[in-house]
Formats: sequence, C-alpha cells, structure tokens
Amino acid sequence: MKILGIDPGLAIVGYGVIDYDGKDAVLLGSGSIQTSKNDSEASRLLEIMDDLPLIIEKYQPDAASIEKLFFFKNQKTVMSVSHARGVILAVLAKHNVPVFEYTPMEVKQVLTGFGRATKPEVQKMVELALAPSKIPLPKLDDTVDAIAIAICHSRTIGGLPRTKFRGKIGE
Amino acid sequence: MKILGIDPGLAIVGYGVIDYDGKDAVLLGSGSIQTSKNDSEASRLLEIMDDLPLIIEKYQPDAASIEKLFFFKNQKTVMSVSHARGVILAVLAKHNVPVFEYTPMEVKQVLTGFGRATKPEVQKMVELALAPSKIPLPKLDDTVDAIAIAICHSRTIGGLPRTKFRGKIGE
Repeated sequence: MKILGIDPGLAIVGYGVIDYDGKDAVLLGSGSIQTSKNDSEASRLLEIMDDLPLIIEKYQPDAASIEKLFFFKNQKTVMSVSHARGVILAVLAKHNVPVFEYTPMEVKQVLTGFGRATKPEVQKMVELALAPSKIPLPKLDDTVDAIAIAICHSRTIGGLPRTKFRGKIGE
Repeated sequence: MKILGIDPGLAIVGYGVIDYDGKDAVLLGSGSIQTSKNDSEASRLLEIMDDLPLIIEKYQPDAASIEKLFFFKNQKTVMSVSHARGVILAVLAKHNVPVFEYTPMEVKQVLTGFGRATKPEVQKMVELALAPSKIPLPKLDDTVDAIAIAICHSRTIGGLPRTKFRGKIGE
C-alpha cells in the first residue's frame, strides 16, 4: 500500500510517499510545498490547497499519515500550522484519502523505540528503513520528517515489533 | 461594498453579508454552514471547503471579515477552529476575496465602544446597525457574531466615530 506522509506547516509542507509491502518500505518520492512569507497567509494556504492535489494525483496514495500537534508553547506557530493542517485534511478528504494522525512523540517512539529520540536518531532509522530504495535521505528536515511519519503509519498497521508506548504523550 | 463576515468553527461557520454604502449597513443575507460531529474532522473541513464557495458565488462579496483568535485557553478548541479558519482563508484567496481579521475584543470595541461588552450588548448594537434592513436578528449566535464581524469591518474602513482602542487585546 502507498502511504503519503505529511509534515504540515505554513512555510513548508514536507511530504514523502512510501510503498509498504507488509515488510519493507520503499520510497516512491518525496519533496515539499514551499510558500513565500512575502505572500498573505490566505494566499499561502491557497498554494497548499492547489499543490497538494498534484501530489495526490501523481502517487495515488491509499492512506495519508500526518503529524498531529499535541502540545505546544508558541501560540502563533500552532495557529499557522493548524491553518495549513486544516487545508491539508480537507484536500485529503476531497480525494478520499483516509487520514491517520501521529504526534511527533509517537513517530519517534515507533521508529526508534524511544519517544524522546533526537532528530539524528530518527533520521538514521528512516535511512535504515528505506535502505532497499537506495535513495539518499532528502536534505530538507521537513521532508525526512514526512517520510518518518509515513513509516510510522506502515509500522503501526504492519504490527512490526515495537516498544509499546505508555505514558503521557507530548511534544 | 459587500462585506462577508465569518465566525469560524468546525461545527458551525456563521456568516453574514452586509451592503455598506459608507453610512448604513443593510443585511443581504446570513446563515451558517453546519457539520456533523459524527463525521471525521477531515470530512467536516471538506464540507466547509465545498460550501463556502456557494456563499461567495451567491453574494460576490468585495471583502471578507473574519474572527481572529488571539488568546485562548482550550488547546483542542483552538486547533479545530484553526483548521476551519485555514480552509476558509484558502477558499477566500481562491475567490480573490480580500481578508480582514479582527479579534473578538476588537469587534466588541468597534461595535459598542467597550472591548469587554457582553453578548446581549453586542447583539443590541447589531440590531441597531441593521435597523434599515428591517430583518429580525438571526437566532443563531454564530450568525449574529458573523454579522457583527462584518459591521466591525464596515466601521473600521468607514472611519465612523468610535472609541479608539488602546491596550492589550485579548479573548
């Protein structure tokens, strides 16, 4: 099954599409939608609304896995990320792509077994998980994060052995 | 000029369209988009994305005036309202409707001269402002709020005498 992972944001929406056969995940493609801070917020959201369908039409994902905000300190950031998330969720629904949501801590937990793993640790696990693709890891963090979110979903549905997370979910 | 006021939300998006001639505001129409809590959040956002254009096409507003979140206590609410706001902003940009944003306190300030006015006080001012329309005030609070937000924009651009608000904006 093809899983579209999305790391939402107003300035950058990272995405990564993996094909998961129940065992391995192969990276089909990845990239980002980037909007200019010189444009109005409404125009930037429109760009996301117009560009995401192109990605969906290209890869025809069976499911989308998107980062969920759970806890945050910066109110301004959470609002602009949530604006982008709202647009993304509506576009996914319009294209009948089922949506699954994971907090950053869940993603870290599923990929590394540790909910407070560092960014390099998560990147390493993404690299290992995608080894069969023989594609170098994208340079943009948001894109790597999006692939991590897609892998998180594949492992969650695949039921591969992973440390069950218990306790308070944060970050 | 025709102003579309919007009170955003996931369950209810209130709207009111006024025609402002530089002096009086006449209510052209009002109502709400309501989504069911039995549907997924993505489906509900899609409903807003699909329904708002019908309102825009019907009234052809020259500007939109939308409630801005500024301060909030409930993180879950702010996220779902922001999701809806994101969709609304993108749809307005798609239809080339310029967007103006006001906090609830700004709306109260502009309408009543007091940023901490009560709901009945604001409703009374909406009623008075719309007296020329001879249309009874809608029953749904979200719709009345949307009309108030539209009037707020008309008075802001109209430069009608109002107490200038100074200090910290909240709520």
